[in-house]
Amino acid sequence: MSILVVGTVAFDAIETPFAKTDKIVGGAATYICLSSSFFSKNINLVSIVGGDFPKTTIEMLKEKNIDTQGLQIKEEQKTFFWSGRYHNNMNSRDTLETELNVLEFFDPIVPESYQTSDFLMLGNLMPGVQKKVLKQMKSKPKLVVLDTMNFWMDNFMPDLLEAIKEVDVLTINDEEARQLSGEYSLVTAAKKIINMGPKHLIIKKGEHGALLFNKTEMFFAPAFPLENVVDPTGAGDSFAGGFIGYLEKTRDTSFNNMKKAVVYGSVLASFTVEELGTKNIKEINHKKINERLKSFEKLVSF
Amino acid sequence: MSILVVGTVAFDAIETPFAKTDKIVGGAATYICLSSSFFSKNINLVSIVGGDFPKTTIEMLKEKNIDTQGLQIKEEQKTFFWSGRYHNNMNSRDTLETELNVLEFFDPIVPESYQTSDFLMLGNLMPGVQKKVLKQMKSKPKLVVLDTMNFWMDNFMPDLLEAIKEVDVLTINDEEARQLSGEYSLVTAAKKIINMGPKHLIIKKGEHGALLFNKTEMFFAPAFPLENVVDPTGAGDSFAGGFIGYLEKTRDTSFNNMKKAVVYGSVLASFTVEELGTKNIKEINHKKINERLKSFEKLVSF
Repeated sequence: MSILVVGTVAFDAIETPFAKTDKIVGGAATYICLSSSFFSKNINLVSIVGGDFPKTTIEMLKEKNIDTQGLQIKEEQKTFFWSGRYHNNMNSRDTLETELNVLEFFDPIVPESYQTSDFLMLGNLMPGVQKKVLKQMKSKPKLVVLDTMNFWMDNFMPDLLEAIKEVDVLTINDEEARQLSGEYSLVTAAKKIINMGPKHLIIKKGEHGALLFNKTEMFFAPAFPLENVVDPTGAGDSFAGGFIGYLEKTRDTSFNNMKKAVVYGSVLASFTVEELGTKNIKEINHKKINERLKSFEKLVSF
Repeated sequence: MSILVVGTVAFDAIETPFAKTDKIVGGAATYICLSSSFFSKNINLVSIVGGDFPKTTIEMLKEKNIDTQGLQIKEEQKTFFWSGRYHNNMNSRDTLETELNVLEFFDPIVPESYQTSDFLMLGNLMPGVQKKVLKQMKSKPKLVVLDTMNFWMDNFMPDLLEAIKEVDVLTINDEEARQLSGEYSLVTAAKKIINMGPKHLIIKKGEHGALLFNKTEMFFAPAFPLENVVDPTGAGDSFAGGFIGYLEKTRDTSFNNMKKAVVYGSVLASFTVEELGTKNIKEINHKKINERLKSFEKLVSF
C-alpha cells in the first residue's frame, strides 16, 4: 500500500500576534507528508521547488520514508513563497504576499512507480493540476482525497466541479462549504455538496473542529483545546495527512474507520499549531500522538 | 429533591434574517424552567412580571410542575421587555430595545418552602440580585449554577466576583470567559476562572458547542448540527435547564455525570433553536429528546 501526495512544497513567512518568522519551510504537501509519515511507510511526493530550496529538508523527508523522486527541482528558479498575517483570534488571516515562482507553470509528472498508488491525496492546488494527476493514475486508487479553497471556487469553478466529481473525500472549510453550496446550514450544505459527486465531505472548522459526512451519516470531532496556539499554518494539511495516513495504515475506508481517521487528523493538527511552521510535526513521536489520542477520547466520551 | 430557578420571565421581540415576531413570551427563567421540566418534577420559580403578562402562560408553567408561588405579579406595572436582531450568521445579535419595567426594582423573595431547594439555578440577572437569593437559602444547596453575561462584567464586576466565589458551576460564553480571565486560550481562561472560586466552569460556544471544566478535567460536547436554525434566543438557558434538570433527576453531581448533563443541555438547546421563542421547548416530548440523544451519541462516538 502507498499514498501519493500532490501539493505545494514552499517557503512561508508567518506573522501572528505573538511571533514572526523569516522564510521557513512550509507548503501543503510538506505538512501532509510529515503528518501521514506517522502512519504510512510508503509516501510518494509529487511537487516542485526551485534551486533555493534546502537540500537538507529533502533529506529529512526521505528519512521519514517519503519518496521524493516526483519532486521536480528547477535549479534556475525560485520556490513558491507565501506570507500571511494571522488576526488576534488566530482563526482568520490575511495573505500579505504570494510569489508563485516555480508553481506558475507546474506540470505535475507522476513517476511510473507512483501511478498505482492506492491512496491519492490531492493537496490544495489549481483544480486543473489536480485533474492532470488524476488522469495519470494507471489504476483507480482505493481512495482519493481532494483539498481545495475559496480562491479556486472564485476563479476556476468549472474545473473544480469536474475534479470533485471523481473524488471519495472532499475537504473544505465551513465558509467554503457555504460558498460551494449556497446554503448556510452546514448539514444542508453537506447534502448538496455530496450530490455534486464526492462520496464524503469533511468540513474543517479550525479551532471549532471538523465534521465528516456521507450521504446518510454525520460525525463530529472537536479541535483539541490547547493552552497555546502559536501558528495555525498547516493545520488543515496536517489534519488531511493524519486522516489519509491512518486510512492507509488500517486499509479500511469504511465510514466507521474514517471517524477514527478524522480524530487522528485532529490530533496531528493540534500538534502542528502548538509551534511555528513544521517544527512540531517534525519532532513529535508515536508516544505523544497516542497520549493525545487518549486525552481526546476522554474529552468527548460521556 | 427540587430545583429553585431564579431569572427573568419576559416579553421578547425577535428579528432574524428569516423571521420576525411581535411580543412573545421569553426570559431566561422561562426557558430554564421549561427545559428542566423534562427531568424534574419539583421546580420552584422566583421571578417577577407585570399585569400584562398572560395568565395562560403561568397556567402552562404550573401544568409542567413548575411552582409559581415565587413569581411576583405587579399588576400595575409592565413585564420586562427585550428586543433583538440576529445577524446573518445567527451567532451574534444586536439589542434593539430593553425596557426594564418590573425588573428595575426587583427584590427577589424566596418563599420559605423554596429555601431548602437542593439545586439552585441563578439565571442571568444583576449579580446583586443573585447574591440576595443565595443569602435567603436556609441550607446550602447540593449544587448552585450561576449564569451571567458581559454586561454585568462591564458594570458590576466586584459584585459578580463575590457571587461566583460561592457557586459550583459558572456558565458563560467564550467571549465572556476571555473577558473575565484576560486570557485568549479557553483552556488557560478556564484555569484562571476556576481559581476565582467556581468549582466548575461551562463555556458555551453557541453553534460550536460547550466545554465543561473542573480543576483537572475537561469535557467537550458539540452543538447538534441542524438543518434549520430559526431562533437562537433561549438556547443558553435551555442548555442550563437541561443541565441542572438532569443532575437533579439523577441526584449525582460528579464530573462524569455532569458530562451527560452537558449533553442533555445541548440536546435541549438544539430543540429550542429550531423554532421561534419557546414554541419547541414547550412542545417536544421525551421520545424526541431520547431520539436526539441517540443521534448525538452517534455523532461523536468513534
